[in-house]
Amino acid sequence: MNRSNAWTAETIAIGSELLLGGRMDTNSLFIADRLAACGVELRYKSIVGDELSDIVAVLKTAARRARVVIITGGLGPTIDDLTREAVAQATGQRLSRRKTALDGMIARLAEWGRTPTKSQLRQAMIPAAADVLSNPVGTAPGFVLIWKDTFFAALPGVPREMEPMIHDGVLPRLQAWIGKHKEIPATPVIRRVLHTSGVPESHVDQRLEGLLPEGTAIQLGIYASPMEVMVSLTGPDKESGPVTIDRLCEEARARLGDIVYGEGDDTMESVVGRLLTDQHMTLALAESCTGGLIGHRLTQVPGSSSYVDRGIVSYSNRAKIDLLGVPSELMDRHGAVSAEVAAAMARGIRERSGVSVGLSVTGIAGPGGATKTKPVGLVYLGLDGGPNDALTKECRFHGGDRSVIKQRSSQAALDLLRRWLLRKGGG
Amino acid sequence: MNRSNAWTAETIAIGSELLLGGRMDTNSLFIADRLAACGVELRYKSIVGDELSDIVAVLKTAARRARVVIITGGLGPTIDDLTREAVAQATGQRLSRRKTALDGMIARLAEWGRTPTKSQLRQAMIPAAADVLSNPVGTAPGFVLIWKDTFFAALPGVPREMEPMIHDGVLPRLQAWIGKHKEIPATPVIRRVLHTSGVPESHVDQRLEGLLPEGTAIQLGIYASPMEVMVSLTGPDKESGPVTIDRLCEEARARLGDIVYGEGDDTMESVVGRLLTDQHMTLALAESCTGGLIGHRLTQVPGSSSYVDRGIVSYSNRAKIDLLGVPSELMDRHGAVSAEVAAAMARGIRERSGVSVGLSVTGIAGPGGATKTKPVGLVYLGLDGGPNDALTKECRFHGGDRSVIKQRSSQAALDLLRRWLLRKGGG
Repeated sequence: MNRSNAWTAETIAIGSELLLGGRMDTNSLFIADRLAACGVELRYKSIVGDELSDIVAVLKTAARRARVVIITGGLGPTIDDLTREAVAQATGQRLSRRKTALDGMIARLAEWGRTPTKSQLRQAMIPAAADVLSNPVGTAPGFVLIWKDTFFAALPGVPREMEPMIHDGVLPRLQAWIGKHKEIPATPVIRRVLHTSGVPESHVDQRLEGLLPEGTAIQLGIYASPMEVMVSLTGPDKESGPVTIDRLCEEARARLGDIVYGEGDDTMESVVGRLLTDQHMTLALAESCTGGLIGHRLTQVPGSSSYVDRGIVSYSNRAKIDLLGVPSELMDRHGAVSAEVAAAMARGIRERSGVSVGLSVTGIAGPGGATKTKPVGLVYLGLDGGPNDALTKECRFHGGDRSVIKQRSSQAALDLLRRWLLRKGGG
Repeated sequence: MNRSNAWTAETIAIGSELLLGGRMDTNSLFIADRLAACGVELRYKSIVGDELSDIVAVLKTAARRARVVIITGGLGPTIDDLTREAVAQATGQRLSRRKTALDGMIARLAEWGRTPTKSQLRQAMIPAAADVLSNPVGTAPGFVLIWKDTFFAALPGVPREMEPMIHDGVLPRLQAWIGKHKEIPATPVIRRVLHTSGVPESHVDQRLEGLLPEGTAIQLGIYASPMEVMVSLTGPDKESGPVTIDRLCEEARARLGDIVYGEGDDTMESVVGRLLTDQHMTLALAESCTGGLIGHRLTQVPGSSSYVDRGIVSYSNRAKIDLLGVPSELMDRHGAVSAEVAAAMARGIRERSGVSVGLSVTGIAGPGGATKTKPVGLVYLGLDGGPNDALTKECRFHGGDRSVIKQRSSQAALDLLRRWLLRKGGG
């Protein structure tokens, strides 16, 4: 275990329910990025249940292989919350009731018109040598502790409590501690992310071949998921080797062209929302197989009510006729899953709602509904921006269940809209 | 580390992208449940990047603290796929090209009309002493290996490849191996899960107080998430102590009453779908602040097209007037976010679509849109099942961002429908 010559980190998430998964972990990326900016690389992630001896064992292992250990969870008021006790036991300290911890908790509860319960008082019991971190949002204080030349931080697992505590409590102390260890080089590392849509991983891989010059410390990662292929460039913050990370990111963007829909924290729905806002356009949706997913995604973005006017989920053929004015002969002739019907749906929703642009999806999400000529995964998209400004697109999604086909259909529809908006805006 | 007297397990997920989180882990619950049924308890979960020495270190740590180690990921064809090499190195073996592995891969590729590429051939290089596990879905074989009295299994990370390989490859071998260790008691453990909706964790806690009799080996867990409070009972499969797990589960159900919406793998949307199907009813939706999320959730269920007729996402007031016939005076008088408008939306969608029941949501998801009397998180639900059969409900969701408020609103609306359907069905 090579912890001696590098700034390595491990995160430990504590909680029996976490062993079973099923929740989206958004903490890791946040912590990894903040540590990287200090020159510390996240190398291990451990998850352990609410069992004191197991937590102690995991803490000891972490101290052997990482210099920085960030613990989340197990700081609540119940007897299952064992992080305080486990850290005290692993580091051979006693717990003591700390005034700063208690005062912070009392102040927070007073804001809500309450006083601490007996079990909440447990939350102020902190390992004796630790530095208390106040929690600006919740009642559980965190703490920071140096033990055997390892930096330990314990924080609540809830993102909106953890995040400000990392910024205001952990990072300043970590940076000070790193500053005292001049013998271990700390190279702040940053990460640039590009999001692409509509092409397979192998296509992105090919276009980026030879991107990294010889001798660079910058690393390239290409990660595929059902909705996108993500490109990440990770490397030193400052000029080092032949190029900077920003120059490489620019070149990657140029090579990939308009398949790049966004950078960093961008999502397809936030990018489309920005383009609609910039061009003062309004949107209406006619969804069939996606069942409302496109509307749901667009309305995840704060402020989307200024450009999303309405949506129709026309699951039945009757709804396509009544609400979108799709001629029933058209459905008889081509079937509800056809380019012709997608076009009629997009035109219908635009004309009837008076918006700038209508977007439609009709397809077979499976597992039922397929025919000889129309397999599961066959999806048609339609876009209508007015007379002589309409598009349709056929997609064939292979492999993946109903949920994946819905996701990929929604992404393809939003991407069709994105490209159309880019052309309109001359971008 | 107390591995000597118990059947403990660790899972190791390999992949640098996994260190950053952001993906839903559905593998852990599957693996934990299958292991528990063999009497093996999942105690640790480790995640490590694509760095050979780190993976070897994690494997060695796992062998010290767990008797069963399930590795997922890192079995692909690229040079970043290091699981085979790491296991060989940790256990002091060489890799050899295995005929069964190669034949399986060639057969799988032949089905798709392809032959193995040079890099895919790497996938047949398996530690010499390992037992090859065929992959019925993809190209990467897995393997099982006993080393230092620890059972190692390596499998692809993709659920639809991993799951059948656990069933057909890992479990029979694990059970045979457990059978050889008579000195270590293996108590098969099962898990019963109840899903509740509409009440806080403390309420569930109170109702279940004293549920577990003295001396039982059964454990009770109560876990809150934005959409529900989950109750889990974990314990020996067979009668042991005063009661069986099934009897306790029944009692928990009785104590909790109709706040229990489902068991095990049930979701709110699948339960509502089953009730609609049983009662031969059709549904139409009028969604405002949820933006299509309810339609999306309902249409995640295969076969939902037989009861979901249509949905209207009436984000603008104009859409509420045009598509749902909500009188504009009603909105002027009470505001778009009001019980009156929720009722009119539900009635409008039912009458205009001719379905059995209309369901509506209008609310303030934030961060904007709040007024002095109408805060972020204020949501009204409406349900209309015909003349003299209408309901509205006011919800006030505190804390949580736009996304959480949308989730909780969709859950509350579906739960309102569930309870109405239960009354209709006399259940």
